[in-house]
Amino acid sequence: MSVVTSTLSDQARTVVGNALQGALVDLVDLSLVAKQVHWNVVGPRFRSVHLQLDEVVAVARQHADTVAERASAIGVTPDGRSATVAKTSGISEAPDGWVKDGDVVRTMVDALGAVIGRMRERIAATDEPDPVSQDILIGLTADLEKHHWMFQAEAH
Amino acid sequence: MSVVTSTLSDQARTVVGNALQGALVDLVDLSLVAKQVHWNVVGPRFRSVHLQLDEVVAVARQHADTVAERASAIGVTPDGRSATVAKTSGISEAPDGWVKDGDVVRTMVDALGAVIGRMRERIAATDEPDPVSQDILIGLTADLEKHHWMFQAEAH
Amino acid sequence: MSVVTSTLSDQARTVVGNALQGALVDLVDLSLVAKQVHWNVVGPRFRSVHLQLDEVVAVARQHADTVAERASAIGVTPDGRSATVAKTSGISEAPDGWVKDGDVVRTMVDALGAVIGRMRERIAATDEPDPVSQDILIGLTADLEKHHWMFQAEAH
Amino acid sequence: MSVVTSTLSDQARTVVGNALQGALVDLVDLSLVAKQVHWNVVGPRFRSVHLQLDEVVAVARQHADTVAERASAIGVTPDGRSATVAKTSGISEAPDGWVKDGDVVRTMVDALGAVIGRMRERIAATDEPDPVSQDILIGLTADLEKHHWMFQAEAH
Amino acid sequence: MSVVTSTLSDQARTVVGNALQGALVDLVDLSLVAKQVHWNVVGPRFRSVHLQLDEVVAVARQHADTVAERASAIGVTPDGRSATVAKTSGISEAPDGWVKDGDVVRTMVDALGAVIGRMRERIAATDEPDPVSQDILIGLTADLEKHHWMFQAEAH
Amino acid sequence: MSVVTSTLSDQARTVVGNALQGALVDLVDLSLVAKQVHWNVVGPRFRSVHLQLDEVVAVARQHADTVAERASAIGVTPDGRSATVAKTSGISEAPDGWVKDGDVVRTMVDALGAVIGRMRERIAATDEPDPVSQDILIGLTADLEKHHWMFQAEAH
Amino acid sequence: MSVVTSTLSDQARTVVGNALQGALVDLVDLSLVAKQVHWNVVGPRFRSVHLQLDEVVAVARQHADTVAERASAIGVTPDGRSATVAKTSGISEAPDGWVKDGDVVRTMVDALGAVIGRMRERIAATDEPDPVSQDILIGLTADLEKHHWMFQAEAH
Amino acid sequence: MSVVTSTLSDQARTVVGNALQGALVDLVDLSLVAKQVHWNVVGPRFRSVHLQLDEVVAVARQHADTVAERASAIGVTPDGRSATVAKTSGISEAPDGWVKDGDVVRTMVDALGAVIGRMRERIAATDEPDPVSQDILIGLTADLEKHHWMFQAEAH
Amino acid sequence: MSVVTSTLSDQARTVVGNALQGALVDLVDLSLVAKQVHWNVVGPRFRSVHLQLDEVVAVARQHADTVAERASAIGVTPDGRSATVAKTSGISEAPDGWVKDGDVVRTMVDALGAVIGRMRERIAATDEPDPVSQDILIGLTADLEKHHWMFQAEAH
Amino acid sequence: MSVVTSTLSDQARTVVGNALQGALVDLVDLSLVAKQVHWNVVGPRFRSVHLQLDEVVAVARQHADTVAERASAIGVTPDGRSATVAKTSGISEAPDGWVKDGDVVRTMVDALGAVIGRMRERIAATDEPDPVSQDILIGLTADLEKHHWMFQAEAH
Amino acid sequence: MSVVTSTLSDQARTVVGNALQGALVDLVDLSLVAKQVHWNVVGPRFRSVHLQLDEVVAVARQHADTVAERASAIGVTPDGRSATVAKTSGISEAPDGWVKDGDVVRTMVDALGAVIGRMRERIAATDEPDPVSQDILIGLTADLEKHHWMFQAEAH
Amino acid sequence: MSVVTSTLSDQARTVVGNALQGALVDLVDLSLVAKQVHWNVVGPRFRSVHLQLDEVVAVARQHADTVAERASAIGVTPDGRSATVAKTSGISEAPDGWVKDGDVVRTMVDALGAVIGRMRERIAATDEPDPVSQDILIGLTADLEKHHWMFQAEAH
Repeated sequence: MSVVTSTLSDQARTVVGNALQGALVDLVDLSLVAKQVHWNVVGPRFRSVHLQLDEVVAVARQHADTVAERASAIGVTPDGRSATVAKTSGISEAPDGWVKDGDVVRTMVDALGAVIGRMRERIAATDEPDPVSQDILIGLTADLEKHHWMFQAEAH
Repeated sequence: MSVVTSTLSDQARTVVGNALQGALVDLVDLSLVAKQVHWNVVGPRFRSVHLQLDEVVAVARQHADTVAERASAIGVTPDGRSATVAKTSGISEAPDGWVKDGDVVRTMVDALGAVIGRMRERIAATDEPDPVSQDILIGLTADLEKHHWMFQAEAH
Repeated sequence: MSVVTSTLSDQARTVVGNALQGALVDLVDLSLVAKQVHWNVVGPRFRSVHLQLDEVVAVARQHADTVAERASAIGVTPDGRSATVAKTSGISEAPDGWVKDGDVVRTMVDALGAVIGRMRERIAATDEPDPVSQDILIGLTADLEKHHWMFQAEAH
Repeated sequence: MSVVTSTLSDQARTVVGNALQGALVDLVDLSLVAKQVHWNVVGPRFRSVHLQLDEVVAVARQHADTVAERASAIGVTPDGRSATVAKTSGISEAPDGWVKDGDVVRTMVDALGAVIGRMRERIAATDEPDPVSQDILIGLTADLEKHHWMFQAEAH
Repeated sequence: MSVVTSTLSDQARTVVGNALQGALVDLVDLSLVAKQVHWNVVGPRFRSVHLQLDEVVAVARQHADTVAERASAIGVTPDGRSATVAKTSGISEAPDGWVKDGDVVRTMVDALGAVIGRMRERIAATDEPDPVSQDILIGLTADLEKHHWMFQAEAH
Repeated sequence: MSVVTSTLSDQARTVVGNALQGALVDLVDLSLVAKQVHWNVVGPRFRSVHLQLDEVVAVARQHADTVAERASAIGVTPDGRSATVAKTSGISEAPDGWVKDGDVVRTMVDALGAVIGRMRERIAATDEPDPVSQDILIGLTADLEKHHWMFQAEAH
Repeated sequence: MSVVTSTLSDQARTVVGNALQGALVDLVDLSLVAKQVHWNVVGPRFRSVHLQLDEVVAVARQHADTVAERASAIGVTPDGRSATVAKTSGISEAPDGWVKDGDVVRTMVDALGAVIGRMRERIAATDEPDPVSQDILIGLTADLEKHHWMFQAEAH
Repeated sequence: MSVVTSTLSDQARTVVGNALQGALVDLVDLSLVAKQVHWNVVGPRFRSVHLQLDEVVAVARQHADTVAERASAIGVTPDGRSATVAKTSGISEAPDGWVKDGDVVRTMVDALGAVIGRMRERIAATDEPDPVSQDILIGLTADLEKHHWMFQAEAH
Repeated sequence: MSVVTSTLSDQARTVVGNALQGALVDLVDLSLVAKQVHWNVVGPRFRSVHLQLDEVVAVARQHADTVAERASAIGVTPDGRSATVAKTSGISEAPDGWVKDGDVVRTMVDALGAVIGRMRERIAATDEPDPVSQDILIGLTADLEKHHWMFQAEAH
Repeated sequence: MSVVTSTLSDQARTVVGNALQGALVDLVDLSLVAKQVHWNVVGPRFRSVHLQLDEVVAVARQHADTVAERASAIGVTPDGRSATVAKTSGISEAPDGWVKDGDVVRTMVDALGAVIGRMRERIAATDEPDPVSQDILIGLTADLEKHHWMFQAEAH
Repeated sequence: MSVVTSTLSDQARTVVGNALQGALVDLVDLSLVAKQVHWNVVGPRFRSVHLQLDEVVAVARQHADTVAERASAIGVTPDGRSATVAKTSGISEAPDGWVKDGDVVRTMVDALGAVIGRMRERIAATDEPDPVSQDILIGLTADLEKHHWMFQAEAH
Repeated sequence: MSVVTSTLSDQARTVVGNALQGALVDLVDLSLVAKQVHWNVVGPRFRSVHLQLDEVVAVARQHADTVAERASAIGVTPDGRSATVAKTSGISEAPDGWVKDGDVVRTMVDALGAVIGRMRERIAATDEPDPVSQDILIGLTADLEKHHWMFQAEAH
């Protein structure tokens, strides 16, 4: 069923569609990982980390929505189902059970670092075929790098 | 690591913990399924269904958070990671690609029906061991049944 | 036309449906009675009573909506039409014309008392067949008893 | 008990009082009818119609309050009790049980049409005796005719 | 200095200008009288009356502003200076010192009654020359008559 | 296609429909003219005039919407397309390029004056056939005359 | 009728009561003068001055209320009636009819200057007998001097 | 003085009244203890703990109010006076002077634990005699247990 | 443990610390007393007094917080524990059980009067050693005296 | 009159100015077309489409303002007058009279498609001469493509 | 250019002007220092300290504005330019590069301590010549001492 | 201390770090200059310019924060201390003492022009090494150019 048309060429559409689908999965999983440690963190910094993680969740959810709707807008169907996320996410699985606050910080530094690295590649890949999608990826990467900095600052 | 204590007996804690963990997974997956069809719905009722699904997402996310924090509060660590959700959810996988609006309605009637059936069992199971957790499950089931009714009404 | 299905047995559904239909009629009539004396109250306490009655109206309208939608959610069609309300309400008809403030207070003490008595029976009746509906009836009874106390306090 | 005085002559007061009392009953019943089908509507347009009806309810309740307080302000006691509404409303009784969305639209076109016709007569009747009350009736008729148009547009 | 022009004839302008200037003075004085008794009321109903008077003040100030700006809009300079208000107001001077709550109610019934009587004449006078100004006078008279009713209701 | 019915006679409908269609075009063009000089004004009063013009835009847009929906409500289709506006507006074309602040004020005095003159005729024309539409025209004329006064006051 | 008692001596009460009564009259008249020129200002700075004056009105009204209620709180009945204001205000009467914007600025510089001079004396007078009342007078003088500066800055 | 009647039997009323009175005292003291350490906490976690404690205060105050008004609503007079609280609270006295952040966390774990244990008994005691009061106790216990978890998580 | 330093001399610190500690206890007890009668008031003025008391509670809680944090800021640990409040408050114990509205008003006149008298002494005592603390005490005394006036006005 | 200078070369300014002027006209006309069908839509999807169109209007108006002010900011006077819009818009004229909901959807798919095609060219044209203007065009194109997708989804 | 006059003598004006100018510079620099460490803080307490510093920035900016406008109000031109701040601030330069959280706390304790010491002198100096300016300095010192306490509490 | 890592090469990091540091200093100084003339402006346009400057301050502060946190996010420590700002800002020092409104406008045209020129160079410099930082610089330049246009428009 060919539903949504776009001014992009088929080739451009494939490249951009892949970038957006990858970004969607990473962002959905980032929101799930952040919630997981939001619920399981323990340690003296519990409250501070608990609140900080919900800000990451909010950012990840908002950008996941933007990215998925951008995919639809260029005629590519986004896939954010749990099985797809579990299989294709770029983030290592979060630890099980209670997690000490310092370990939460390291978990988030790693998770954000992994996602940012892939986003940088997507920014490069979409520059030529679709500056509109690229602009969305640039904007969300700025947000992710801000949170990356803040967790790194806490790790010192 | 025994972190959080509770007035519940170990046996009660196991029963209630299982109920809450099951509820968590169902609610997280409900939010992912609703988002999936929120992005991929097509048909004359697109806008109406698209908006309605975001209300389900909001309800599912809010109750997932409440349920997970309730598990922590009785000393049971919640698990809402993507792999766990993919493996243990009570909801059938949502369809791939564009979905016609009528099919979206049926998908949601089924998904909500499946979750409600399991929630009713959890309400029964927690009555004795922990009326506080049961009250949370009762409250969220009322919300789910309201949305179940509204999608059923649209299927006629 | 069998539109909305439910996990309740037919028998449970009948019991719960009757309780909700009765609650709906009482709450709609409570809102009409409170508005009637809101408009017709006279006396030194006019302003205080006039404002207090609008809080009862707001509470009654909100719970009527919840109760009616709960009936739909279990597959029972609610009936809140004026003729049905006029025929089956548990509240005595409000007085005609101007009403002195003290008489308004007594009218409301009686009206709330009548509704509360019937709600207590509905709470008992729904305990077994549907704890979700019962929880809704418990919550609204708490609100009605609060307003009942306040009008009683004013009658002294 | 002669409570509230007015600058209107007795004759003007009777004419205007009748117009306001009639408007009150029609508006209260309009709010009850709209709620009735708000709860019982089924069909693909469920959500859209369900939400639209609550806007009618809000408009009808607000104008009913204005009209009743206007009656009090000219010294005529308003009567909005359920029995009075059931007996003297200008709207046909709403259908029982589930109602298909298209039938709901027709029900509302008819109900609004009936009320508007009577309001136009009240505008004519109050022009001479009390332009202040007339202005209130003109304003609410504009709102009713707007909703009448929107339901008619949906019937095509 | 002929500053603001208008589509009204000179004669119409004089009639309407007089009506608006009179309304302005009455409304400014109404706000001052209501504030005076707002500060000086004593008695068991102190709080209720104290709050009610501030609603009259708000209504009087808002309509005074509308009426004065309407005068400017038709090219007639409004005069709301204290000496002008003291000399030409249609309201009897408020009592000096502490005032019992019952006396406050009677003061307001009289003040509002006096202003309403004059407003009714202004509505009649402006009907022909300027329906736009008349509409403003009709709207504010509805508000004044509502407050007149409420103070009268309290006097019984 | 006869879509929306009305209680007005065909003749009344024609008169009122013409008045509303004329008002719609004038108001849409007023919003475009005000935006045009909002963007192109220069001079020491730039900021003050720039902000004031956006208030006119907001008023014009809101009343244009009310007037167009009123036309639909009486069964007459409104026409606010750019070609229709360009051809039938009662406002002279705004100047091209940068405009000095004083010239902007004069442009707005003229534009508002032209529209008000035509609105006054529409108020007279609709008095008999439809007091509901007339009331809408009276209300918006009051707003336009207020802005007309303020620009005239600035021209001195 | 000795209604409200205070910890102040009779002599202190007289001094402080006089200061507060004087402040009340000045502030009420300041609000009336500012409104008068708010309505009658003309000239290129119309809009800027028109808005600025309403800020003075808001400040004057708020402090008038505080000062009057402070008088009541120490057992002295405040008098803010129009005749009292007209007779005892420290502000020269505002000009009649349209007022050029530059003249409005000068009017406000003078009015605020006059009130501030008297407030400074009241601050000195109340220092000993009642630091609580003095603190209120200090606070409002800061606000008046801020507005005085702003009108002076505009006069250059 | 028998002021407020209830549908509860005298025996039920005694049991429920005792539960509510005990809950009231515990909640008032919890708010005082939390404020005490809110003001006196010192240490690296000062800010985090300081803010967290105010959330406990807000929760305790809100539930104390609900519980006390529920007592009144069933006709039992609540007693939340300082002497009663000091004598009958279930919480150990908070430490004097500055308190290290870690000690604050332990103080709150103990205080919340003590209150929760007593609330669990009250939930059991009120199940039979009054499900409405029980529902209130269940709801507040959920909140207390959530805060208990969070302080425990911080103690690790 | 010497935690917080201050620019005050030890002697000044002792004087100011005592004043603030005394103010804290009085304000905490004032909030408890006002809540006690808020819950137990009966009589025709129930609603008016019930609402008024919550305004006193809000004021007392806010100032108690400010005063306690001010003590901490000058290096003196505040003590607001229930036993301390019960032992050292300057307010007589509130009556037990239901209280007639007139008696509530008298209770509050007395309680506020007692606290104000002590606050006046604290204002005098802190003038020399710390004008910053004194300013806080002056500000809260103005609020208390305003409420004192209002309850006195109601007693007549 | 050379009013606003810019760091752009004359040639760059011409290219960017043309792009912005074209974007302005398209966006103004888009808002007029969307309003036209907002008022004239009929059919079962009336309400859904009616609301959706107002979101397009809001987006188009906001971006038109940004684009016009961007033109001014680089020293090029924007032209958004009705005649200019009618003559140079890239959108086909909207249909006259009532429009069926399905036709409205197709009208909007076409209108948005036409504007997006031209915007894509403007993004390419401004890349070199002014990345700041390009960024604005990229951002608004993302919004237009989102709405384009949603109307396309509804056409299936 | 003698622009703004004042009731202060020249000598008083010099003293008060100096106090306000000194306060302005200290507050501007406090805002810059707090921002500097807000951006450069690292360590486990990063988030807590990062947020706390922005509260100091908000307080410092708001008081700087008040103090500068107070200087203008007494006719003394304030100087808050970067060179003036760099040269005359009473705060030691903040450290360069990343700063550990504990060092940030000590930096703020020192910076606030230095500013408070100078503010105390300004309070003493302005007592005689201008109680209005003094009141502003007293108010802001209370805020600074509150933040001083909180950073000191964190240093333990 | 190597605290925050980044995906940028060392060379890219140096280039981007310099651009961000320069932008930070310019923006901080812009906020100080705008505040300086906000406090010292005199002349007939005082109020308009006074308010306009605070909008520049808000924009400059917000972007300074974004730019500084972006520097931290790529691992470069930002320096916004007063001495650094005084030494390295690209803006000429603002004039001392009172400034006529026309001179204020010219001061801001020059200050904004200087900053914009440098920002344009930074946009070019960061294009290759970091499109994320470049996007931030593009966005803030759009805001600065908008304010630049508005002050230029006022200079004519």
